[in-house]
Amino acid sequence: MKITGKQIIGYTKVNGGPDSFKSAIAVDEKSGPYIFEEGSAENVDQAAKKANKAFKIYKLLPVADRVKFLEAITSEINSIRDTLVSTGMQETYLPQPRLNGEVDRTINQINSFVSLLKEGSWVNAIIDTAKPDRQPLPKPAISQMLRPLGPVAVFGASNFPFAFSVAGGDTISALAAGCPVVYKAHFGHPVTSELVGNCIIEAAKKTGMPDGVFSLIQGKSTESGKALVSHPLIKAVGFTGSLTGGRALFDLAVKRDEPIPVYAEMGSVNPVFLLPGMLKDDAVGIAKSLVASNTLGVGQFCTNPGVILMVKGAESEQFLTQYVSSLTATAGGSMLTESIFNAYAKGISELESSQSLESMGSGIAGNSNTATPYAFKVSGADFLKDRSLFEEHFGPVALHVIADDIAQLLEIAETIPGQLTTGIWANQNDVVEFKELFNILEEKAGRLMINNVPTGVEVTHAMQHGGPYPATTDSRSTSVGSQAIYRFVRPVCYQNFPQELLPPELQNRNPLNIWRKVDGEITKDAVA
Amino acid sequence: MKITGKQIIGYTKVNGGPDSFKSAIAVDEKSGPYIFEEGSAENVDQAAKKANKAFKIYKLLPVADRVKFLEAITSEINSIRDTLVSTGMQETYLPQPRLNGEVDRTINQINSFVSLLKEGSWVNAIIDTAKPDRQPLPKPAISQMLRPLGPVAVFGASNFPFAFSVAGGDTISALAAGCPVVYKAHFGHPVTSELVGNCIIEAAKKTGMPDGVFSLIQGKSTESGKALVSHPLIKAVGFTGSLTGGRALFDLAVKRDEPIPVYAEMGSVNPVFLLPGMLKDDAVGIAKSLVASNTLGVGQFCTNPGVILMVKGAESEQFLTQYVSSLTATAGGSMLTESIFNAYAKGISELESSQSLESMGSGIAGNSNTATPYAFKVSGADFLKDRSLFEEHFGPVALHVIADDIAQLLEIAETIPGQLTTGIWANQNDVVEFKELFNILEEKAGRLMINNVPTGVEVTHAMQHGGPYPATTDSRSTSVGSQAIYRFVRPVCYQNFPQELLPPELQNRNPLNIWRKVDGEITKDAVA
Repeated sequence: MKITGKQIIGYTKVNGGPDSFKSAIAVDEKSGPYIFEEGSAENVDQAAKKANKAFKIYKLLPVADRVKFLEAITSEINSIRDTLVSTGMQETYLPQPRLNGEVDRTINQINSFVSLLKEGSWVNAIIDTAKPDRQPLPKPAISQMLRPLGPVAVFGASNFPFAFSVAGGDTISALAAGCPVVYKAHFGHPVTSELVGNCIIEAAKKTGMPDGVFSLIQGKSTESGKALVSHPLIKAVGFTGSLTGGRALFDLAVKRDEPIPVYAEMGSVNPVFLLPGMLKDDAVGIAKSLVASNTLGVGQFCTNPGVILMVKGAESEQFLTQYVSSLTATAGGSMLTESIFNAYAKGISELESSQSLESMGSGIAGNSNTATPYAFKVSGADFLKDRSLFEEHFGPVALHVIADDIAQLLEIAETIPGQLTTGIWANQNDVVEFKELFNILEEKAGRLMINNVPTGVEVTHAMQHGGPYPATTDSRSTSVGSQAIYRFVRPVCYQNFPQELLPPELQNRNPLNIWRKVDGEITKDAVA
Repeated sequence: MKITGKQIIGYTKVNGGPDSFKSAIAVDEKSGPYIFEEGSAENVDQAAKKANKAFKIYKLLPVADRVKFLEAITSEINSIRDTLVSTGMQETYLPQPRLNGEVDRTINQINSFVSLLKEGSWVNAIIDTAKPDRQPLPKPAISQMLRPLGPVAVFGASNFPFAFSVAGGDTISALAAGCPVVYKAHFGHPVTSELVGNCIIEAAKKTGMPDGVFSLIQGKSTESGKALVSHPLIKAVGFTGSLTGGRALFDLAVKRDEPIPVYAEMGSVNPVFLLPGMLKDDAVGIAKSLVASNTLGVGQFCTNPGVILMVKGAESEQFLTQYVSSLTATAGGSMLTESIFNAYAKGISELESSQSLESMGSGIAGNSNTATPYAFKVSGADFLKDRSLFEEHFGPVALHVIADDIAQLLEIAETIPGQLTTGIWANQNDVVEFKELFNILEEKAGRLMINNVPTGVEVTHAMQHGGPYPATTDSRSTSVGSQAIYRFVRPVCYQNFPQELLPPELQNRNPLNIWRKVDGEITKDAVA
């Protein structure tokens, strides 16, 4: 494994700026850690210019060529998958089965975009035929389809070194859409990032993609990221991380002479509502499921159920008792980075010192760098008084909110800020009795679920991994599932064009055999 | 015609703030102008709160009820159509045939959204069925569809008192999407606005819509508009107007605690490229078409062809000669408001005093408040030096750019800022020879056309009336055509929901018989 610690600017490894940072893992037993050069504003400019040049070619390639490129990325990743998993384990402390599964997920994601491109209808082709005899003026032929925005900046996440990182959903959906990507690697796993970056570059070379279709900037400082979002040739941003980080990038992007869309997937506490009937039916089972979901992967999922709400009563008591019992039998683990662990520890001590919260217990403590799972509880009245209790604590901790009655539970539901997900545990009676709660929650999240834990985000067409602010900066978008491609395109309309100048998707004979909307009707038929 | 000059806050006429402004037209021959109270921040708050309350009901109504509401709006408008047209004529100086046509257009727009709602597939229903036997974990049923964002603020345009105003495309697409609207009327036509506002209120009452589904704020000051965009209950903004105005609203919206999308359709010079072969074929015909398009409606269209580009040569000379000849035979007219006329006059005198521009001539001058059509020319080299020449001058003026050669024409094309439209006049040879120009221009505008003038925006499914910044603040959206509805919705995903809790669009049996994507296949079939 040869790691350069350099910037990957298209097909060239380039020196970074004067600063550098160390990886968490060592080169070998004798040597020190890998040294990574900090990507500079100049590197960002090189990458953006190459990306823009590549865009002029890439956007015009037949869709079959983009498919070959994406498929080649999966081959390259598969060819070094053992190295990737073992490196990822060392850099992120995530266990082998989890990372193996994550590589599978990454490949599945790529394949789902391959299917989408092959099927082809995603471009939303709309054709309104000419009406030369219309009075008072003839109607020209007008058609539209989605076209790529241009070079896209992608910021990798700490908690998914593969599926939300270099060849993750953001990068792949942008490449699938026809947009080159300038990728800013997360400093938590720079070695893994360089390895996956090499895979994309190899795939691009082997399939004849233009130099600059992908670049990778390393860096622990935020400077290169700021330069990237501010660069005039960058046309959109994908990000997964904290509210602070996402909002900072958003603020930069909207201040530009030409503002650009920022798709930042940020914090979420994913409130879970436990309704009385369902609690009566299965308090023990629900408690076990929620402890498992809250502590999975040391609680480092954006869909972690961080706030659990219920009405006080015998069922809730039974649930809480089981929750504590399961929690105390659950071990924590090493977190992704030292800074994430420190933030978690600080958060826990703040919660412990809060006047209104009561500690319910904790899981099995490990060594000093291991995050221990925790749970706290608070009354509905106190919860309503303190907006800060909606803030995410990244890690294995849950806050249980005990409302006085259903009215207070609904009042709390109304005050929930935007979330990625919200869940309800309800039996058949609850569903009828608490219809109002569903109507309230529909406005609060991108994904609603019943009797399911929020962790385990399916990669599927109907997935919506997004939600109202502050869960994301753009509730109209998703960062998981095939709909993620729509973040990086815009409609372009062609009026009175001769057939030979139209993209194949819009030509009368429908050479790609895709579903289109022709004069208002959904059809695969050719236009007469 | 009873005009109150008050704010329409849902079903109640409410007093405005202490300030007031006058309409351009008189109550009758003896009395003075109509007096309109300035909508206050308090009025905005009243309207937003009512809209939010109405939203909770409106979003859950069966789609058939929304259809009835929209259809009732067309009936109300038709019932006072003569009054509307005569009032509009007095307030905007636009001629009767134009305003009659605009009322037709407004009704056609409403009907197109009615058709869209009735057909129903626009909600983008996606269903991924459960796979209970999947290993290692069962796959839950997941489905998604588009749901309304919440109360929307709409700002009326000066130049379309009907089609881009009170019951124009922004308002109707939001109402069709399920979003209540708080409408800020343009001060240029407050009487017309109150009349159309009354139509919407009558329609809402007659079809049982919740109080607050529509409100209308009057005002000449920008204060109420700022309050509206900053109001926490407002979830999106539609605007048509100047770059300064649109950017100011955008900047306010993105600074909010919860940023919201702003769909501002702003300035555009709609560059038109005349290619040599086509000019040789029909220099005279093209010149006549472009003079007519540039001076139509006193040049007060966002798609007005303001910059016309060509390569120097005999064909261009012939074109320019005919352009001047047609222009000098063309009369101007009164502009929409005094401030618009003053801005036009100021722009013309700036162009006249520019060192690099040469005046080509002007049309027939009227009285002192009548805008006279003008044309100027500039060399390609000088045009490249001065970015300000891309700025829109709202009115009947065109700038002709004479490039030295094709290379310079392409260089200019690369520097064009975002546009609503761009057009190319090309014959069959030009199309082949100048393919590169098409590829460049595709990145610059929302709508590209060949051998068509840009004015006359068709209301049709495939229309894209939008474009990269600064043409709009969101190139992913359109403000004309049925796709405009997508500005006011976001996907909501339902996981493991019982059938009876799902919206009809997502129920297995497909009760609305709409096109859906089921397990990746487009179909109208029920789910087994």
